[in-house]
Amino acid sequence: MPQLRIALAQVNPTVGDLTGNSELIVDWARKAAEAGAHVTVFPEMSLTGYPVEDLALRKAFAQASRAQVETVARSLADAGCGEMLTYVGYLDQDEEGPRNAAAALLGGEIVASQFKHHLPNYGVFDERRNFKPGHTLDVVRLHGLDIGMVICEDLWQDGGPVSALGEAGVDLIVSPNASPYEKSKDDVRLPLVAGRAREAGAPVVYTNQVGGQDDLVFDGDSIVVGADGQLLARAPQFVEHLQVLDLDLPAGGHSAEGEFAGLRVSRRILNAEPLPAYEPLPEPTISEPLSEDAEVWSALVTGLRDYVRKNGFRSVIFGFSGGIDSAVTAALAVDALGPDAVHGVSMPSEYSSEHSRSDAAELARRLGCHFRTEPVADMVKVYVDQLSLAGTGLAEENIQARTRGMLLMALSNLEGHLVLATGNKTELAVGYSTIYGDAVGGFAPIKDVFKTHVWALARWRNAEAEKRGETPPIPENSISKPPSAELRPGQLDTDSLPDYPLLDDILDDYVEGDRGFKDLLAAGFDAEVVDRVVRMVDKAEYKRRQYPPGTKITFKAFGRDRRLPMTNAWRETH
Amino acid sequence: MPQLRIALAQVNPTVGDLTGNSELIVDWARKAAEAGAHVTVFPEMSLTGYPVEDLALRKAFAQASRAQVETVARSLADAGCGEMLTYVGYLDQDEEGPRNAAAALLGGEIVASQFKHHLPNYGVFDERRNFKPGHTLDVVRLHGLDIGMVICEDLWQDGGPVSALGEAGVDLIVSPNASPYEKSKDDVRLPLVAGRAREAGAPVVYTNQVGGQDDLVFDGDSIVVGADGQLLARAPQFVEHLQVLDLDLPAGGHSAEGEFAGLRVSRRILNAEPLPAYEPLPEPTISEPLSEDAEVWSALVTGLRDYVRKNGFRSVIFGFSGGIDSAVTAALAVDALGPDAVHGVSMPSEYSSEHSRSDAAELARRLGCHFRTEPVADMVKVYVDQLSLAGTGLAEENIQARTRGMLLMALSNLEGHLVLATGNKTELAVGYSTIYGDAVGGFAPIKDVFKTHVWALARWRNAEAEKRGETPPIPENSISKPPSAELRPGQLDTDSLPDYPLLDDILDDYVEGDRGFKDLLAAGFDAEVVDRVVRMVDKAEYKRRQYPPGTKITFKAFGRDRRLPMTNAWRETH
Repeated sequence: MPQLRIALAQVNPTVGDLTGNSELIVDWARKAAEAGAHVTVFPEMSLTGYPVEDLALRKAFAQASRAQVETVARSLADAGCGEMLTYVGYLDQDEEGPRNAAAALLGGEIVASQFKHHLPNYGVFDERRNFKPGHTLDVVRLHGLDIGMVICEDLWQDGGPVSALGEAGVDLIVSPNASPYEKSKDDVRLPLVAGRAREAGAPVVYTNQVGGQDDLVFDGDSIVVGADGQLLARAPQFVEHLQVLDLDLPAGGHSAEGEFAGLRVSRRILNAEPLPAYEPLPEPTISEPLSEDAEVWSALVTGLRDYVRKNGFRSVIFGFSGGIDSAVTAALAVDALGPDAVHGVSMPSEYSSEHSRSDAAELARRLGCHFRTEPVADMVKVYVDQLSLAGTGLAEENIQARTRGMLLMALSNLEGHLVLATGNKTELAVGYSTIYGDAVGGFAPIKDVFKTHVWALARWRNAEAEKRGETPPIPENSISKPPSAELRPGQLDTDSLPDYPLLDDILDDYVEGDRGFKDLLAAGFDAEVVDRVVRMVDKAEYKRRQYPPGTKITFKAFGRDRRLPMTNAWRETH
Repeated sequence: MPQLRIALAQVNPTVGDLTGNSELIVDWARKAAEAGAHVTVFPEMSLTGYPVEDLALRKAFAQASRAQVETVARSLADAGCGEMLTYVGYLDQDEEGPRNAAAALLGGEIVASQFKHHLPNYGVFDERRNFKPGHTLDVVRLHGLDIGMVICEDLWQDGGPVSALGEAGVDLIVSPNASPYEKSKDDVRLPLVAGRAREAGAPVVYTNQVGGQDDLVFDGDSIVVGADGQLLARAPQFVEHLQVLDLDLPAGGHSAEGEFAGLRVSRRILNAEPLPAYEPLPEPTISEPLSEDAEVWSALVTGLRDYVRKNGFRSVIFGFSGGIDSAVTAALAVDALGPDAVHGVSMPSEYSSEHSRSDAAELARRLGCHFRTEPVADMVKVYVDQLSLAGTGLAEENIQARTRGMLLMALSNLEGHLVLATGNKTELAVGYSTIYGDAVGGFAPIKDVFKTHVWALARWRNAEAEKRGETPPIPENSISKPPSAELRPGQLDTDSLPDYPLLDDILDDYVEGDRGFKDLLAAGFDAEVVDRVVRMVDKAEYKRRQYPPGTKITFKAFGRDRRLPMTNAWRETH
């Protein structure tokens, strides 16, 4: 029975880095060739990184990408990978406009290329803006086997390119992807790919990008599914990985060309002879998906690490307040970058409690990261005196938060660290933060994590440490004490907000579930509380826009997935 | 010959304000009815305001809009406008999704409705994201005349809805629009509408929205063009206006229904009898377009006024530095809001020159606005001493800018003014600003104006004042002195940047013209300078993202029109 050895190169490119990504591709292709692979599949737009956003419209960039894919074809041949069919995603451009493209490379040349047909334009995707759709499918025959390709979203459409390939006939489908992480996304991905494999009557090789890019994180989770829909292999999440496996593929000898499901199928014979029998590899590994907590934690660590690294920073600095948000941010940062790259600053004011200082110091001790204290009392005092802010409430409270932001930025300017903002999704949703104050920073690691989820992650991370016989990173007191901004004596978050479990429940329905005011009342929430929460959320859009980016882990992350007007008189509660 | 009196209601709705916009529509419809209009055309999505962005995806909002259009139909009848055919744009929703819709209202009912077919998804538009396209055209016969409708972008497409109406046959085309202002846009708009009128063989009534919404400004400039392409009427720019005129329309007695140019044309007879002859109005006015400087100035004034007003503010506050940017911002603010709503603050540091204080004071004197002095030396000193910033360069310079930002925010918190950022497009392009410093504010009026253009506007505004016998608002010294950030002794902008005329020339080609590095060298620019400028521009994307919104006056405004990755290793100069 004909066999083919397939490699899935689950790699982490950087947007715009054509040279670096080319080297990445050649390096991993070399590993695949050394493992004896006949076909290697890289992710969608692996040469440019994904998403390139409006960089797609920059002609000089599209031209450079187009030229670079030919360079990569030659480099692969020079590196001894010329006999391996290598699928690489890139940005193309022709007279119609920019294209989300993938090419099959062999013997130093492009032997097939294809443009993505279905261009997603919802949620995080703007592909109708950035690309023109393709209408052709380039099938190649390698070692007697007919191999078709579909790019990412093309896989998600009923009656789309997979139908066309199924009707025309192929023995194998390869699919380069850049599918961003969302909580439990594998629960959607695997059944989808399995269904498409059954529909086409051919195995599907699904390679996904891994790593962080701006506010997106890609989890990898590359898979191979048999023609019967059975999962044959799965790569681990959140790491670069080469998954290699042998497939038993009957040669179908398909030859139909022309129009199928509105797409033009063409064929090219690269190599008609089946491979001689060879010794297959042992059964491929099927990596288990991570638990939900581990998955989210890994997504946050990956998103933070790559944002820092890809932007040329080596270290981070932020306030250690003694509270849960900065504690979880610190544990994430140490997991992402190591303790020596993490700088905590305690910035007590006259309203700071003793426990906020001691909890911050204890956090730093447990993590082994850098820690210093810079009181803000003297700075605050000059403003308060000169502008007569004493007793003015908000103006005086904000000065404390903003003094801290300025202080962190000065240390960043002096020492070169990236400043992190430690706000969570609940605060962002209701606008419970100070613009130019605690909102200062280049990245906000837990921006898409609700407050109750921050606590849950803290407990999970501590429990993981205990399982491994390590010191739990987060002081118990930071988890258990009632949250406070400490901007006035005795202040508690609950002075301004409903209890977090109730608040998060409402936000989950209103923000994630997109439920209307009446639905929320029907769900049993108190009208007065819902009214208050919804008003706060609707009013806070400008603050959210000014907040730094942060790793997205849900479908309705603020910023990327919701683009609301800043001037907006609509009130849900009307 | 049959006649019809048409009114174009060029109004300024607020996004999300269904109740307020309904009142606006009824008020203006009443004026049109009093003027004897038989047909009145409101702008695209006039009931919801435009653009609603992702608010379109909010089901409760779409349902409320859908219900509201029926309410408006009844309100119009109650207000005595029931016999006038009134076209109103709104957000609809059906099983396929949200729709950019317009309805014809008569006798308290919706007598025709239609969904936009061509959904723009480039530049400032995200309509493929927010709406599903429609495929039908609802033609009505009123007083024996067949009236078709096309919504905004439907007018811009060759072979689109206008072709379909032309083939099927209509006597008049009405077109609700929300076409954002760009410099000299009328030069594009009028030939386009004229061409379509000739193509369809019917006059086109083109009503545009007016006013500011977030960073967009709509200039109005509503027009009526005859079947021969001749301009019959034009409304003035940047003001709400009711343009009323009589049209001599031959009744074509068209009856073709069914599929034309891929769209389904249906017809409904509301009223088959031609109107009895009536005394026509005098010839309609054709307002002259403003000069380019006047047009840009009006756009900036309108954008600022509506951003402040629609967000519920009554006054603005910002730094008066004595420089040209704050002086032009101040003149704009006084033109937009009146002198009593403008609060200037001089915030000298130890490096501030004497002329920066006197020029600021003189500006305030000429404008008659509020003015105060708040030195920042004491605040800066605490930071510099505590963090040992003396002589550290950037860290020390930024502290001065950030102290000023904090000070303005404190005054805003105390007194309720909106803070304006006074940065210009050149600074934004190359990142010559301090995040959380001079970038602080809710709105940035001259964000899309290059530095050399800021000077030109200053001279134009002063000359206008002189023509009117008024005091020129901007002190001559603020125009003529060399620009300086005054963050260290003797500092000049030219220490860090090329001369502004050269810099703006390069930016105009690189940013507005989207020309590549090689093109710029071919255009004769020095390679070293281009390399420096392009690197600065490519590096400053994050700073630009954190900058407040500001009125867009060019196609390539930062923020709205360019969406570049924050992590981006692409360098044009590679």
